[in-house]
Amino acid sequence: MTRFMGSLDNLNDAKFVIRGYPYDGTCSYKPGSRFGPAEIRNHSEGIETYSPRFDMDIEDIPFFDAGDLEFPFGDRDGVLERIELDAESLLSQGFILFGIGGEHLVSLPLIRSAHRNHPNLHVFHFDAHMDLREHYLEDRLSHATIMRRVLDFLPADRLHQFNIRSGTKEEWQFSRENGILKGHPCDQLSQLRPETPIYVSIDLDVLDPAVFPGTGTPEPGGLTFIQLVEQLAAFRGRNIIGADFVELAPNVDPTDVSTIVAAKLIREMMVIANG
Amino acid sequence: MTRFMGSLDNLNDAKFVIRGYPYDGTCSYKPGSRFGPAEIRNHSEGIETYSPRFDMDIEDIPFFDAGDLEFPFGDRDGVLERIELDAESLLSQGFILFGIGGEHLVSLPLIRSAHRNHPNLHVFHFDAHMDLREHYLEDRLSHATIMRRVLDFLPADRLHQFNIRSGTKEEWQFSRENGILKGHPCDQLSQLRPETPIYVSIDLDVLDPAVFPGTGTPEPGGLTFIQLVEQLAAFRGRNIIGADFVELAPNVDPTDVSTIVAAKLIREMMVIANG
Amino acid sequence: MTRFMGSLDNLNDAKFVIRGYPYDGTCSYKPGSRFGPAEIRNHSEGIETYSPRFDMDIEDIPFFDAGDLEFPFGDRDGVLERIELDAESLLSQGFILFGIGGEHLVSLPLIRSAHRNHPNLHVFHFDAHMDLREHYLEDRLSHATIMRRVLDFLPADRLHQFNIRSGTKEEWQFSRENGILKGHPCDQLSQLRPETPIYVSIDLDVLDPAVFPGTGTPEPGGLTFIQLVEQLAAFRGRNIIGADFVELAPNVDPTDVSTIVAAKLIREMMVIANG
Amino acid sequence: MTRFMGSLDNLNDAKFVIRGYPYDGTCSYKPGSRFGPAEIRNHSEGIETYSPRFDMDIEDIPFFDAGDLEFPFGDRDGVLERIELDAESLLSQGFILFGIGGEHLVSLPLIRSAHRNHPNLHVFHFDAHMDLREHYLEDRLSHATIMRRVLDFLPADRLHQFNIRSGTKEEWQFSRENGILKGHPCDQLSQLRPETPIYVSIDLDVLDPAVFPGTGTPEPGGLTFIQLVEQLAAFRGRNIIGADFVELAPNVDPTDVSTIVAAKLIREMMVIANG
Amino acid sequence: MTRFMGSLDNLNDAKFVIRGYPYDGTCSYKPGSRFGPAEIRNHSEGIETYSPRFDMDIEDIPFFDAGDLEFPFGDRDGVLERIELDAESLLSQGFILFGIGGEHLVSLPLIRSAHRNHPNLHVFHFDAHMDLREHYLEDRLSHATIMRRVLDFLPADRLHQFNIRSGTKEEWQFSRENGILKGHPCDQLSQLRPETPIYVSIDLDVLDPAVFPGTGTPEPGGLTFIQLVEQLAAFRGRNIIGADFVELAPNVDPTDVSTIVAAKLIREMMVIANG
Amino acid sequence: MTRFMGSLDNLNDAKFVIRGYPYDGTCSYKPGSRFGPAEIRNHSEGIETYSPRFDMDIEDIPFFDAGDLEFPFGDRDGVLERIELDAESLLSQGFILFGIGGEHLVSLPLIRSAHRNHPNLHVFHFDAHMDLREHYLEDRLSHATIMRRVLDFLPADRLHQFNIRSGTKEEWQFSRENGILKGHPCDQLSQLRPETPIYVSIDLDVLDPAVFPGTGTPEPGGLTFIQLVEQLAAFRGRNIIGADFVELAPNVDPTDVSTIVAAKLIREMMVIANG
Repeated sequence: MTRFMGSLDNLNDAKFVIRGYPYDGTCSYKPGSRFGPAEIRNHSEGIETYSPRFDMDIEDIPFFDAGDLEFPFGDRDGVLERIELDAESLLSQGFILFGIGGEHLVSLPLIRSAHRNHPNLHVFHFDAHMDLREHYLEDRLSHATIMRRVLDFLPADRLHQFNIRSGTKEEWQFSRENGILKGHPCDQLSQLRPETPIYVSIDLDVLDPAVFPGTGTPEPGGLTFIQLVEQLAAFRGRNIIGADFVELAPNVDPTDVSTIVAAKLIREMMVIANG
Repeated sequence: MTRFMGSLDNLNDAKFVIRGYPYDGTCSYKPGSRFGPAEIRNHSEGIETYSPRFDMDIEDIPFFDAGDLEFPFGDRDGVLERIELDAESLLSQGFILFGIGGEHLVSLPLIRSAHRNHPNLHVFHFDAHMDLREHYLEDRLSHATIMRRVLDFLPADRLHQFNIRSGTKEEWQFSRENGILKGHPCDQLSQLRPETPIYVSIDLDVLDPAVFPGTGTPEPGGLTFIQLVEQLAAFRGRNIIGADFVELAPNVDPTDVSTIVAAKLIREMMVIANG
Repeated sequence: MTRFMGSLDNLNDAKFVIRGYPYDGTCSYKPGSRFGPAEIRNHSEGIETYSPRFDMDIEDIPFFDAGDLEFPFGDRDGVLERIELDAESLLSQGFILFGIGGEHLVSLPLIRSAHRNHPNLHVFHFDAHMDLREHYLEDRLSHATIMRRVLDFLPADRLHQFNIRSGTKEEWQFSRENGILKGHPCDQLSQLRPETPIYVSIDLDVLDPAVFPGTGTPEPGGLTFIQLVEQLAAFRGRNIIGADFVELAPNVDPTDVSTIVAAKLIREMMVIANG
Repeated sequence: MTRFMGSLDNLNDAKFVIRGYPYDGTCSYKPGSRFGPAEIRNHSEGIETYSPRFDMDIEDIPFFDAGDLEFPFGDRDGVLERIELDAESLLSQGFILFGIGGEHLVSLPLIRSAHRNHPNLHVFHFDAHMDLREHYLEDRLSHATIMRRVLDFLPADRLHQFNIRSGTKEEWQFSRENGILKGHPCDQLSQLRPETPIYVSIDLDVLDPAVFPGTGTPEPGGLTFIQLVEQLAAFRGRNIIGADFVELAPNVDPTDVSTIVAAKLIREMMVIANG
Repeated sequence: MTRFMGSLDNLNDAKFVIRGYPYDGTCSYKPGSRFGPAEIRNHSEGIETYSPRFDMDIEDIPFFDAGDLEFPFGDRDGVLERIELDAESLLSQGFILFGIGGEHLVSLPLIRSAHRNHPNLHVFHFDAHMDLREHYLEDRLSHATIMRRVLDFLPADRLHQFNIRSGTKEEWQFSRENGILKGHPCDQLSQLRPETPIYVSIDLDVLDPAVFPGTGTPEPGGLTFIQLVEQLAAFRGRNIIGADFVELAPNVDPTDVSTIVAAKLIREMMVIANG
Repeated sequence: MTRFMGSLDNLNDAKFVIRGYPYDGTCSYKPGSRFGPAEIRNHSEGIETYSPRFDMDIEDIPFFDAGDLEFPFGDRDGVLERIELDAESLLSQGFILFGIGGEHLVSLPLIRSAHRNHPNLHVFHFDAHMDLREHYLEDRLSHATIMRRVLDFLPADRLHQFNIRSGTKEEWQFSRENGILKGHPCDQLSQLRPETPIYVSIDLDVLDPAVFPGTGTPEPGGLTFIQLVEQLAAFRGRNIIGADFVELAPNVDPTDVSTIVAAKLIREMMVIANG
């Protein structure tokens, strides 16, 4: 296996751990996010380890790319359980976990484990879609319900959504009633203490399809790459304990640009989370 | 046939009618806009019926997707005649007609019929190209001459073009002499009475090729999706009696993003035209 | 929904029923067979209803394309149950069922139901892969174990495989010990009575990838289209009570040829099964 | 303009003339054969001028690639007229005309002109489709009716079809009644005198889609490249006065193999026709 | 060979000369910029000769597209020598040279020759990458070292870089120490006399991958087309003696939009450089 | 790095060594064979380790995939030298070397080293092209001259070519004069002693483009996969000391079938060479 550029060779001394979750089993439209982790690694060599924007090199940050979990594809519940067990082990040891999807549903066990380890967790969610449905295609566990399931254990005032531009009328009503959709992370962060544990879940389709066509459900009207990095820069100096980057379907974009966008975003986010 | 998401099952009670014109017979470069209507319908399920931007759901708007006309491909004049007859029937019954191309030439019979039914019609034209040539490849009837043919029956002060960024020197001179190219629809609309009948013709290549690569003659330097919706929002509360969405060639864009952009734009425009 | 070309408009008077199963949830490599049924219908118009090879027109055969089942994507067991219930209803009414996958696992409930309705059923299986593993990626229910699961209820001397060219050493040993792999269907059929009920399961990757690249696990060294039709012609006059056509992943083949191959094969098989 | 590899620089001294007809206006399915002539020229450099099969180099054959005709795209009748005028000029001067399509309808004016110049002409037609419909989509002039239109002036016993594998029941009945479909050109040619003028029309979809996916209406079950060359070799020493190569849609095949197949076939055919 | 739209037929009377350098021999990632010059010419017909932005038509500018140099592909040093000899001949005759790559290394001999003919040359470099490495993959001559090699003969205060967003830590340190990276060309130009000879080297990946995916090493976070033209507009009225446009790999972008972007940029730059 | 499926983890105990040469620097047409080795490894998991044709599993053969050499891309002579040094080291230790290209020129240092270690070497060359030119584009060292360069040190009666179907008139004349092109390897092998050292060079374009479109210069009229394996089966029991598999350009074939064909061929060849 190729590791993400700049990775250590083993877990010792690592502060960050990268883990891939090649699962897209509840994807209802264009599958392929299962290929996300491997392709991001392959293309990470196409960019540099140095971030001019933040003047930091991830070769100076101790992180280890621990590879992918292996999944029994037809067994969704088994998949989620396996992710949660693995995350539990990593988060309880104090590693900052960077998860690479796969579909958005993989965030559910990650956030659940993060919440168990950090009961006063706040979740910052970047996405084009609300993902707040109660059911989707008769199912309660799907990429379209993931944030609603998070609210089964996380108080709604600790979920903060950004840049959402699609959902059902019911989802928007629910979101408005609960004040979930916010403007800019800066405003939100200024109300939290520096030590508050933060989990950042990034559905990459928050980017405009012009920038990031390689995803299962592209939604026109999103952010440019620079705009997204600008929003994420607000997290510098904050206590990020985990993050995920989901819904890259590299097979959908024959130019590989979407994959490179994802790799660069992970680099920038690691620099940001490193403090 | 799959209908556009949210369509009624029949024409009764409809206020809007969607009609597809799968014709690209005069296309001089990359053909494929014939596939536009079918692909837009297929991919319309990939977005939601609810518009957060305008807080309205098209499931609450009575519209009927009446399917495509069938054409004898080699016979351009017969094609145009068939479109005009069909439009005449729909417009004279008072339906708001949303036409899906196909190439831009299909707008000619639509606008002619709209003008016949509404003699004081104003035409708002969004495009990258002027389409004001007198001839193109020895022909007077083509996607490159369509707006010049409209001026055969519509006074030039009732044609308003927006965001044009390509044309011959002669076309630009003609346009300047007649004051056809305008800045923002707001300025123009403020000079018209609310009840003035308006036809909106949108050549989707008005969007930047980054946003909308799936078209026969992409022209760099265009609008983002958000910018175009912002301009179209100006029509809210206006008396739109018809609109068309042309020049999507879905086969040119392997990511299907262009098709989804077109579908979402039609949704937003229907919400706008609904008032 | 577009129906397969030549379909009746309803079930009444039908002798054959076409049903689509857009499920690819256990696919371990390239997903996309979920798109198979819809694409086959869309492209069926690209060929004729008349078969010169067999001098018969499917417009003269009463068949009804009943559309796709809808599935909760993450719930494999629920999917299989839904398929079996539907098949049970159709087969018990005496319809000849033509199933379109989706992945090969969808054949399991189809064959189970066929076996329940016809206890002396023989299964003829065309494939590049044995699909006789006991487990695959820790799972007993997958596209790679389907025929082993069939042997949980069907005696091994009633399963006949053709043109297999890939498998593990263990699968081949098991197959040899049980005499499952055969030479040409003719030889096998000559040993059965005319009225013996027959189910034909065609994993389309039995064709060479040159002919049929649009599949998740292409295996070099397969049949030409003509060779496959020649083998299937042996079933003319036999009592075919069901058939399936699985593992087309249309998104893998940008030329659409694989989809057209599948559509034409379904046409030929219907003519053959019609007697 | 790039010329076909090995072309003379002008018409003087030429024995063969290559002419391109970039027209696909009646194409009902996937357009793009308009790009055929230009792409064949661009890719002709990818093969050699020397034919090992026939031990002859086309650099030793005087031929001139006269480029493409330009067409008013929307005006089918004007297009056909222009082709016929041009062909008349070339054929009446005694050039052997090699036409590159474009769709099959361009063969109609070519064969009409060939027949006018050689009243006892025989036409050999290689195709997957009969093209013998009286009407297609209400039209009498289309790629699907071209050979029926040829029979408006050519006696049916002088039209010989090969390798047809698709058509309506009516077309096949008509063909059988008139004895149009033949087995191998050898048998047919042996009944003609050596000096009999022969026109060969090759719809490239006569090849199997595995070999030639780049065409608008691929039909499974066709010839390999070697099989087609073997059939064409039968024409060596015969009085070929014209030939056409139609229905390559290079945009449909992202590998460019179809285009290279067409270029090599033209090379082989020129060697064959040179005697 | 097709020439760039609007080209004269020969060198006489030309003020500008376009030359193509189809070389990508040191490309370390995705090759294909060798196809850049030919594809730009082919697609230049897809845009107009008239620039509305600058109200000038390149048909009114005397320029000659002199075609491509031919290269021995395996011999990098021979390639560079051949480019330099050719450039020397053109620049010493006073032509303004517009070079089309090919990879960025082709700029080295161009700038060297430009410097020899104009010793007080200033180089303006637009790029996503610094290209200031001393070595790359053990090599001193590569697309990643080109600007460092330019500094072997050009004083660092005469190299001005714009919009760079990627490089190693060492490159950025070197650039900062030498003040090479600048903000906007306007500021820089205002410090130079009008007659100062200027060479503009544009690595097209300075554009955002959304706008220009067709390049070997796309780097997220770049310019829009309009932003780049705005920066280049600053050069109007300046003494541009040469320019190059490199790193288009048209094969990477199946929509051809990148190629059209390059062609339009060359048109705009010619209008700008014409004064 | 992913290794070829079934590889040992280190060189100890290996009988075979797989080495990748990601070089395509002299490729004159479509580059991309540099991606061959990595893609073959990635897709090798898509097939099985067991060969039913030869009833042997490569997991029972001790082989080690030693990964790729790294190359300075612009320096062809340095690349060739590096390959030869590496091959020398491996062959002199008695490993059977399986080389994966890259372009065909990488075979030159491999065969040179094989010849040095086995002076009575015979070379069996499978290809569509002769590769016997003295020069190509002014160069003596290129993928089109490789076998002519081999004849600089190997007597012509020890070079045996198979299935060639393209070349210049001069190449064919040279080949005929020297009796280089043969019919079937069986005939040739029967004239050699069992212990004669044999090197097999397989340019994968020997396969028909229908089977193997993913190559830089596809040549219609080649072998099916089964035909090639049948010819290679003749080498079973022979003293193969090295083999190479070159000219896969995986980027040319969007279906990945060509890559899978290459991987399966390497598996079959290893089984054959194992005796």
